Amino acid sequence: MKQVVTVKRHALAANEEHAELLRRRFAGSGTLAVNLISSPGSGKTTLLEATLRALRGTVSCAVIEGDVATENDADRIRALGVPAHQILTGGSCHLDARQVARALDEGGIPEVDVLFIENVGNLICPTTYDLGEDFKVVVLSVTEGDDKPVKYPAIFSRAEAAVISKADLLPHVPFDLAAVQARIRSLNPTGTILVASALSGEGIGGWTDLLRTRLAAKRRAGV
Amino acid sequence: MKQVVTVKRHALAANEEHAELLRRRFAGSGTLAVNLISSPGSGKTTLLEATLRALRGTVSCAVIEGDVATENDADRIRALGVPAHQILTGGSCHLDARQVARALDEGGIPEVDVLFIENVGNLICPTTYDLGEDFKVVVLSVTEGDDKPVKYPAIFSRAEAAVISKADLLPHVPFDLAAVQARIRSLNPTGTILVASALSGEGIGGWTDLLRTRLAAKRRAGV
Repeated sequence: MKQVVTVKRHALAANEEHAELLRRRFAGSGTLAVNLISSPGSGKTTLLEATLRALRGTVSCAVIEGDVATENDADRIRALGVPAHQILTGGSCHLDARQVARALDEGGIPEVDVLFIENVGNLICPTTYDLGEDFKVVVLSVTEGDDKPVKYPAIFSRAEAAVISKADLLPHVPFDLAAVQARIRSLNPTGTILVASALSGEGIGGWTDLLRTRLAAKRRAGV
Repeated sequence: MKQVVTVKRHALAANEEHAELLRRRFAGSGTLAVNLISSPGSGKTTLLEATLRALRGTVSCAVIEGDVATENDADRIRALGVPAHQILTGGSCHLDARQVARALDEGGIPEVDVLFIENVGNLICPTTYDLGEDFKVVVLSVTEGDDKPVKYPAIFSRAEAAVISKADLLPHVPFDLAAVQARIRSLNPTGTILVASALSGEGIGGWTDLLRTRLAAKRRAGV
């Protein structure tokens, strides 16, 4: 068991070096890189589709998709005319920085304003793997229950923004929105919490405003 | 990377030894052990609550809960008067056989007819860790989307039963039930697929019938 922990520490240290190279690369191109993390089925890809439609024509975007299997998610993004590369992890439960670098080198991803990295559906393992991103976003759908922040505290502490998704389903599920917001704030007092529905469009404006603001700030800092 | 894979192989081999001891232990006591695996928030604990109510008085049960943090789920089970032990994994993304053995030795879990092991919410990592169970059950809520079996094929191939949960929400979500059933069958032609709602009670009878049938078969085989 101790050996597993040591090897994991080595893997994380190696990842950190590659993440640092990615961070410099994103600084050089002025690209805002966003690492999206959630459970399977919380609606990350559907949120991305709504986001890409809302940003179309004003902010150039690309997407790196991480999944255990299938090109489905990259195909959905490409159908919108947005460049996308699918990383297939086989059995692995998270993306690492080397995979992202390889996707940028070989996956035909152009330099863009905002690069979305949709991580493998998993609330635990992707949390500790830095991908050189500007910030992490955790997506939690209202159908998953309002107890999830306290059950998966690491990602809710580290994500600079939390998007409560599938808000259109709120009338149909037992989900205490005020309680979940308080739980996220107690783990992460300075983070942004957004309530959104990709289907109804609720909250998409606030979310894209956040992205535009962060992109502008990065560009100003880079001057 | 090669080193990580080798160490993981060692960890899995060590786990297999402990799983074999658990399997003998469950055979000795005639206990049916069921390993429940799903994404966070698919409704495993709520399904268990409905199951324990339905089996009350006829089948003795106990529950081992696995979570990264909080005793919440074990507390919910204990509130029904059912023995429960919470394993807190810290950051770990799955239960292993040694943790389950320790829970049985030290967690005050009596010998029962059916032992439910609710794994950490994660569709990937728990798949490869044998807990000495009689069978794995994968729970997929209708809000997670009908593409999940092909995106997470390992667990849908290995689980002897798939429970499609939160069926009460079917009128409100885009989810093709026939398509998801076909996808699961293509991965696992002999598995059982059940459609259930812990809130409405739909499908709970079929699910508890499956448990009773498997328990009776195990007891007959043990004679």
